[in-house]
Amino acid sequence: MAKKQKTFRPKPRLPKGMRDIRADEIGAINNMLEKLKETYELYGFEALETPAFEYSDCLGKFLPDQDRPNAGVFSFEEDEDGDWVSLRYDLTAPLARFVAANYDQLPKPFRRYQTGSVWRNEKPGPGRFRQFTQFDADSVGADSVAADAELAMLGADSLENLGLKRGDYQIVMNNRKILDGVLESAGINPSAEENELQRLTVLRAIDKLERLGTEAVRQLLGEGRKDDSGDFTKGAELTPGQIDQIISYLATGSAERGDVLGGLEELVANSEIGREGLKELRDIDELLTAGGFQADRVRFDPTIVRGLDYYTGPVMEAELTFEHKNEDDQLVRFGSLGGGGRYDGLVARFRGAKVPATGFSIGVSRAYAALEALGKLEQAKLNAPVVVLVMDQDQKGRYQAMVQQLRGAGIKSELYLGTSGMRAQLKYADKRAASLVVIEGEDERTKGEITIKDMDEGSELSKEIEDNKEWREAKVAQKTVPHADLVAAVKEMLATNSGVASQKEADKS
Amino acid sequence: MAKKQKTFRPKPRLPKGMRDIRADEIGAINNMLEKLKETYELYGFEALETPAFEYSDCLGKFLPDQDRPNAGVFSFEEDEDGDWVSLRYDLTAPLARFVAANYDQLPKPFRRYQTGSVWRNEKPGPGRFRQFTQFDADSVGADSVAADAELAMLGADSLENLGLKRGDYQIVMNNRKILDGVLESAGINPSAEENELQRLTVLRAIDKLERLGTEAVRQLLGEGRKDDSGDFTKGAELTPGQIDQIISYLATGSAERGDVLGGLEELVANSEIGREGLKELRDIDELLTAGGFQADRVRFDPTIVRGLDYYTGPVMEAELTFEHKNEDDQLVRFGSLGGGGRYDGLVARFRGAKVPATGFSIGVSRAYAALEALGKLEQAKLNAPVVVLVMDQDQKGRYQAMVQQLRGAGIKSELYLGTSGMRAQLKYADKRAASLVVIEGEDERTKGEITIKDMDEGSELSKEIEDNKEWREAKVAQKTVPHADLVAAVKEMLATNSGVASQKEADKS
Repeated sequence: MAKKQKTFRPKPRLPKGMRDIRADEIGAINNMLEKLKETYELYGFEALETPAFEYSDCLGKFLPDQDRPNAGVFSFEEDEDGDWVSLRYDLTAPLARFVAANYDQLPKPFRRYQTGSVWRNEKPGPGRFRQFTQFDADSVGADSVAADAELAMLGADSLENLGLKRGDYQIVMNNRKILDGVLESAGINPSAEENELQRLTVLRAIDKLERLGTEAVRQLLGEGRKDDSGDFTKGAELTPGQIDQIISYLATGSAERGDVLGGLEELVANSEIGREGLKELRDIDELLTAGGFQADRVRFDPTIVRGLDYYTGPVMEAELTFEHKNEDDQLVRFGSLGGGGRYDGLVARFRGAKVPATGFSIGVSRAYAALEALGKLEQAKLNAPVVVLVMDQDQKGRYQAMVQQLRGAGIKSELYLGTSGMRAQLKYADKRAASLVVIEGEDERTKGEITIKDMDEGSELSKEIEDNKEWREAKVAQKTVPHADLVAAVKEMLATNSGVASQKEADKS
Repeated sequence: MAKKQKTFRPKPRLPKGMRDIRADEIGAINNMLEKLKETYELYGFEALETPAFEYSDCLGKFLPDQDRPNAGVFSFEEDEDGDWVSLRYDLTAPLARFVAANYDQLPKPFRRYQTGSVWRNEKPGPGRFRQFTQFDADSVGADSVAADAELAMLGADSLENLGLKRGDYQIVMNNRKILDGVLESAGINPSAEENELQRLTVLRAIDKLERLGTEAVRQLLGEGRKDDSGDFTKGAELTPGQIDQIISYLATGSAERGDVLGGLEELVANSEIGREGLKELRDIDELLTAGGFQADRVRFDPTIVRGLDYYTGPVMEAELTFEHKNEDDQLVRFGSLGGGGRYDGLVARFRGAKVPATGFSIGVSRAYAALEALGKLEQAKLNAPVVVLVMDQDQKGRYQAMVQQLRGAGIKSELYLGTSGMRAQLKYADKRAASLVVIEGEDERTKGEITIKDMDEGSELSKEIEDNKEWREAKVAQKTVPHADLVAAVKEMLATNSGVASQKEADKS
């Protein structure tokens, strides 16, 4: 042995920003996905699945954080041909590829929903992972803003179906065309190529309003701003008059949608694109009202711009309005857990001709965290098994037969598969959160009986009990019945038990 | 415009070996996943999810087809640190990493199930994709072959829960230790390092028995074999006497498990590892019989060896026994749709100390294809929406309100979101397989009425009808009711409709 080369032993570790998910969370997330599916299908969207990776040129580069290698995506060569593929960073870019490839045979508009993992090559942090789950709905080929209004309603109904109550969330909408109108009114042509960078700088400045406040935004719209660390961010170099116009635009936010629309009227009166954007918001308001969605559920807010490059019209965000304690024990608003908007140019990348489209996406892990913070996580159905102990290794066939009898009756159950003694087996059952254990030792076998032990009451005790004999004498929370009554007795004990189990769950939350 | 640089237009195409999955198949697959989950949980396995990629050294190299680049996996650099990661090629290697990383806090045995996509960088072909879904159960830390027997039972019960009937499938088991015993009896020490290649060549020869027949296997066990194309495969170079021993071992297959065990007895009598393997199969037989699983469900067959390198003991395959027509219209057996076995060395890669483990995996796409071939695919619940037509673009608010009323009553419904006229809208509804359309034109509005059209009967007709007026006069399969009765009337028509819809589905299969 000493002569053998030292074996390489890899360290069992997760890649950066990745995580494993255990049974309880999987159960809760599956419940959430079912509810989202229910709402998305109620709205008439149909399911689609696309592969995990696509040709890199098909995905395009639309992520806001492009300083990272590969512009935030994970890319690799497909095979010896040297074509590059990338793991999808959202579900919208693959949809655009799918629609472009299958355009002629799809119903127009094409209304699809999709859920799945997406991957981003971003700096991981607390609660910020490199693989996460999105749940999207999109209408492709829908010119009318009725499609945008519907997604706002879908968003609101989805969050309520997940268990959020009215007042804990808001869908907040805006229209990038109105901002363009304000720019035009201020003397900047927003569609001129030479103004592209300036327009983007304005968008990014506005996106920082909530975090940095009005004064910082003023600086970012003007010469620029030095942050606390001394780093200087170059500004959009607007004139003081132009800055005032943007700032008064941002101040038109209000509780009622009609008031926001009224406040915007004058600001965009001289801009065609601005009037168009305002008309679209008016139409959306009308549809929302007709659909029964008041401003407590869907609000208008001029400060919402969204980070992704590809939006061309209405944009929206799903915001949680309640406060919760963050890692530093400070009360903060939970913030956004999804959003979307209109992207009329994304399919045109492939086809040339414009194909209007709009979408909405919920971040499932964010929604999970929000429901957890609210204590509203629906507990997954308890998956506690019944464990049949192996008291005598020679009698495994008998125990196996008992397990199959229980399974045949639809009772989740398992045979203890290790080789340890009684005490370790009870510890195992405890760690598995088993509801009951079934025991047939020699005594019972001779008498044609079995003993069923209630683990909820028994687990505490088991730690103190040293051996089989002592255990049997303690006879706490257990029942001995004829072997033939196994299934009936287990069913009865599980039925009386379920109250206790639910109670335990309730105490946790 | 002419001066503008020609814009780059990517071709909307799928990466090689990838596919999109549409709503009907997604629905059917989700039903299958639910049923598999039900059986796996009934057996007391708990869910786990691991990320899509892992550090390459954690996954290891165990794929049979190692001639491809990256040994069959998709690999890339994680980020600027230069660590390599690989998309998982199965769900077993990530489980070994998870168990090694969390060993102390897990219950032992750790019984987990997992479903998800896996990726293989293999040559794609018809029905052979580079991304596919597996559904696995594994018991880690379970020394006893009761764990292997249980997985065979799980496999059989899972396939029946999916809708396969007894006789259409078999779980076929063997034990690699018995083959080692036969080798040992033939004078070849199977655990000696210098015999590793020879042993592997024997395994591969046996793996080809069903495809090539006994004579070819004889050649592959001896000098080697020239195939039809003239390519020569070097053989294991056994002596004629040794070859005879292997061939008579392979012939011990029989309908009854007891007969197989009897036939093997003499062949391994002189080998310790062989006797151990036989003892394990005897124990498995006893447990299967106790669990009520006869040889029509779980059979023993010495010719089963499995392709993956890491198996160390009992191995099993889920085989479909019925015949179906392949692409060339030939009747062929459907073959394997999953399998597994014991891999006592995989966690030891990380920890040094041996951690016994055994697993079973179902190929979900293979199972889908099998159910499809049998005409047993459970149709997904029909997701046909009710479409509210937009007869008058100015009245969208009214239509939107109707849609929300229907949704409020739990009826899948949508507003037509395009801008086309009546005829195109009816074609859209037809393409969406809509159950009903709801129509409120000016006539109806004036009278406070709506018209509901049954699309099942109406779709044929709509192709011939040119305009609104003609349509209205045809009045086929439609009903006009007071506006206030919208929800009630739709519900009633859907109820009488559902018989028709099911009928249509039944005709398809």
